[in-house]
Amino acid sequence: MSHYIRMKIKESLDAYPDPAESIQAFLQDLSRQFTCPENFEGFPVGLLAAETALRSEKLQQACQCAYQEWENLFAGKLRSAGFSDEKAAEISTVLNAMIEGGIILSLAKKDKMPIIHISKQIPSLLRT
Amino acid sequence: MSHYIRMKIKESLDAYPDPAESIQAFLQDLSRQFTCPENFEGFPVGLLAAETALRSEKLQQACQCAYQEWENLFAGKLRSAGFSDEKAAEISTVLNAMIEGGIILSLAKKDKMPIIHISKQIPSLLRT
Repeated sequence: MSHYIRMKIKESLDAYPDPAESIQAFLQDLSRQFTCPENFEGFPVGLLAAETALRSEKLQQACQCAYQEWENLFAGKLRSAGFSDEKAAEISTVLNAMIEGGIILSLAKKDKMPIIHISKQIPSLLRT
Repeated sequence: MSHYIRMKIKESLDAYPDPAESIQAFLQDLSRQFTCPENFEGFPVGLLAAETALRSEKLQQACQCAYQEWENLFAGKLRSAGFSDEKAAEISTVLNAMIEGGIILSLAKKDKMPIIHISKQIPSLLRT
């Protein structure tokens, strides 16, 4: 599951030289999953983190590892666009949080608009 | 539970005239919960949304209602600072997503830093 999301992130990051544009492409792709949320393939990683973070050490580590992989992809893209290591790591964590939170809100609202709104804010986030 | 978070958001928004500063105060307060995550009181609303969005219509509506209340508080603060209705609604959704996602990442990493990194990005988000 986490590999599917990782592959999707990598595909988008590789497809566009501009980091903002590439992350927006990923979010655009993600938002399309919400036309049929019961088939959505990436969500269970976040769900698993939420369910198990306070209970199972092993599963909590698996989630942390998946998040770290995604963050590493974002951070690599940002560093290649001239961001410092520290800034790239910080922004990547924030991107991951926005994506996870956007998925939860889109599920709760049964609407892809939270992910679309997040996508619109990516250029401001990357201008910092 | 959702009323506790709502009260915390309202307290911070009322305490500072500047929207960015007030949201950062809320996040600072939230991050302190992660010194002892098993006592964290707000998280179960997000968890509930994740667990039930695809299953229980009634619980999904309760989560949506809680999120909407929090978003309304943020949106009111932003409008009072001169944001248009549309912009205030969009940014409030993004804030909610960042907060939810930040909580999940902080739980997965057992570390308050994701919430701290999010807090640092609030001024850029509100400059848009």
